[in-house]
Amino acid sequence: MAYIQLPEGAVGMRGLMAFRPHLAPHLGAFTEGILCIEEGLTKAEREIIGMFVSKLNDCQLCEGVHGAVAACYLADNEALIEQIKEDYENAPISDKLKALLSIAASVQKGGKHVSESQISKARELGATDIEIHDTVIIAATFCFFNRYIDGMGIAAIEDPEVFRQRGKMIAEGLGYAPKK
Amino acid sequence: MAYIQLPEGAVGMRGLMAFRPHLAPHLGAFTEGILCIEEGLTKAEREIIGMFVSKLNDCQLCEGVHGAVAACYLADNEALIEQIKEDYENAPISDKLKALLSIAASVQKGGKHVSESQISKARELGATDIEIHDTVIIAATFCFFNRYIDGMGIAAIEDPEVFRQRGKMIAEGLGYAPKK
Repeated sequence: MAYIQLPEGAVGMRGLMAFRPHLAPHLGAFTEGILCIEEGLTKAEREIIGMFVSKLNDCQLCEGVHGAVAACYLADNEALIEQIKEDYENAPISDKLKALLSIAASVQKGGKHVSESQISKARELGATDIEIHDTVIIAATFCFFNRYIDGMGIAAIEDPEVFRQRGKMIAEGLGYAPKK
Repeated sequence: MAYIQLPEGAVGMRGLMAFRPHLAPHLGAFTEGILCIEEGLTKAEREIIGMFVSKLNDCQLCEGVHGAVAACYLADNEALIEQIKEDYENAPISDKLKALLSIAASVQKGGKHVSESQISKARELGATDIEIHDTVIIAATFCFFNRYIDGMGIAAIEDPEVFRQRGKMIAEGLGYAPKK
């Protein structure tokens, strides 16, 4: 049960945005701007960073939804998503993405935990300024979403099928911005 | 020195937004939507929550800027801002605001740290659903901003006069959304 009375019928973030509709278009467009673009990082990599930070923040709802969106972009490879969650350093992903996930993990602890040596390592492995920037802003944004959702007492979802359906909708065109 | 090459001439958040201009209007409008409204919480209370969370996150830049904006809304009462930073429970602010700052402190640790009893106490002291919601979203948003700024290696500002000038500009009409 959420800590406040939310409009009926909308769950998760959509319920919160229905409660404060003046914020919805801006937050939605910002989220699309960091997650729904292929520039440097792929959409799948962006969702993986969000899922990974959500797991570190113990936010099951965001971990579930964004893991499902990422899997959808990766031909439904849910096993890979689980591998990344459990042990990303030994998962079959690029060394560059591993270095970026290490930066994301530092952002999750606090901005000052990011070190020059983490940035240098990511750069040596091919990460561009845009990729480093977008990793930091995505990780920081999930520190927002996770706190917002859990801090409002939004209930977790237990059924993985709900995540699959939601992930498919987002990945296949719904995105994050409110539709007119 | 920032970890990436930012456009010259823009400092702090403005430098980051100049690097990723497609995000600037959305993030600016969202920030205005949570900080620059008088609905339940005053603008000063909103800035105090942001300043308070920034201090907990050890982000001197946001602590300085938003403390200065808050002081500007409060007839330049910088002493009150310092009191809130040092010991908000004994500062001359309303019991309702103290209860909301306690919720903000829990959000800073992580969303699941917010408890039913904190929410009940805030409600008993007169906090509405909108005030509780806005406290949580402001606190969560500063967990984003603090991580984004420090995670990008943006330099702190040492001179309090710079904060005063910036705070005055924001409070007196500049706000947070990029101006056309």
